[in-house]
Amino acid sequence: MPKITQQQKEAIRMEILNSARHVFIEKGYEATSMSDIVTSSSRSFGGVYLYYSGKEDVFLDLLRREYENMAPDFGLEEQGSAWNAFVQFIRGQEKRVREANAGLAPCLYEYFIVGRREDHRRKLIEERSQAVYGTLFDLIHNGVQRGEFHPAQPLDIFVHWLISLLEGLYIESIINGFENIQLAQQFELLLTVCRSILRPSGLEGNL
Amino acid sequence: MPKITQQQKEAIRMEILNSARHVFIEKGYEATSMSDIVTSSSRSFGGVYLYYSGKEDVFLDLLRREYENMAPDFGLEEQGSAWNAFVQFIRGQEKRVREANAGLAPCLYEYFIVGRREDHRRKLIEERSQAVYGTLFDLIHNGVQRGEFHPAQPLDIFVHWLISLLEGLYIESIINGFENIQLAQQFELLLTVCRSILRPSGLEGNL
Repeated sequence: MPKITQQQKEAIRMEILNSARHVFIEKGYEATSMSDIVTSSSRSFGGVYLYYSGKEDVFLDLLRREYENMAPDFGLEEQGSAWNAFVQFIRGQEKRVREANAGLAPCLYEYFIVGRREDHRRKLIEERSQAVYGTLFDLIHNGVQRGEFHPAQPLDIFVHWLISLLEGLYIESIINGFENIQLAQQFELLLTVCRSILRPSGLEGNL
Repeated sequence: MPKITQQQKEAIRMEILNSARHVFIEKGYEATSMSDIVTSSSRSFGGVYLYYSGKEDVFLDLLRREYENMAPDFGLEEQGSAWNAFVQFIRGQEKRVREANAGLAPCLYEYFIVGRREDHRRKLIEERSQAVYGTLFDLIHNGVQRGEFHPAQPLDIFVHWLISLLEGLYIESIINGFENIQLAQQFELLLTVCRSILRPSGLEGNL
């Protein structure tokens, strides 16, 4: 039997992941079974189990790759100012919230909320939370160090608060649909409030 | 065989609900089976099915009763001012978020997120969303009509936004634990921001 190269293995993985992604989005994490994943791929049970030990294994590989592709879509240097970089980050979030129901986000919430007591899921939750907190804190803290932000509130609290608000916008969009909750206007209000808290140089303004 | 009175029936329902509540909180909505509910009660399968057609039926009856007990813990008249009534409402939310993991809230999120595409759940979600929106809108709108609030932002957007933020605080508390997200300080920040948007008479203030 001819040996399969690493490249070929990776191509097969990608095929399995692509079809599994559609199944997860269509059915949701809990309602999807390994059998659904196998059926959606053009492979046999054994052919899929060569690569993945089960549904959770497939899902976690999908998440890993989605996050790798999600390089921060902002950079202080390219954006000219800390405030521009912040706005860029928030606009990226708005886009992701708007597209939440077409992607894996609802599955991720299922995975986290349903499995909130399982140790290995808790670990993933904590890592993700810390990564998000760190990214956002650094972005804002850089602006403070450059003398561009003059926060009216403690930075750590503000960052936690901003994360809660973004989570809420995700959840509300997933549950009620982004059209029903006036998402665009909510993001405008969010930016107005953030500006009045961060007080970027030259842009101080009331609500 | 002696007939069971309505009162006795209601007492049996309450017994089943009380034990089911513990099971849901302990295991989560998805992981709980009707068999778990029967086992936790002191009754037979047949004895429970006389009252409930299945797990979802039990859960929905539980929810209904919890919401009935949740009369708004604020009232404009008793609170003296619209701002006091608003603060009282937010403090009530803070208490509920803090206790979220000890109650049915995580199960409710499971139920809504996992079942977001099932018609009868969607209906319940919409009813709940509209009720929350209406309650909050009325509370604030009364303050405006009494000449006590001078909102710096459109009221409908602000109410949607406040609901998103409260949802986010629930989700973050459920997923990460309220101690880890500095919940108390987040609520202080929330009140500061709300005050600067609602601008209650005599309390106008910057962030």
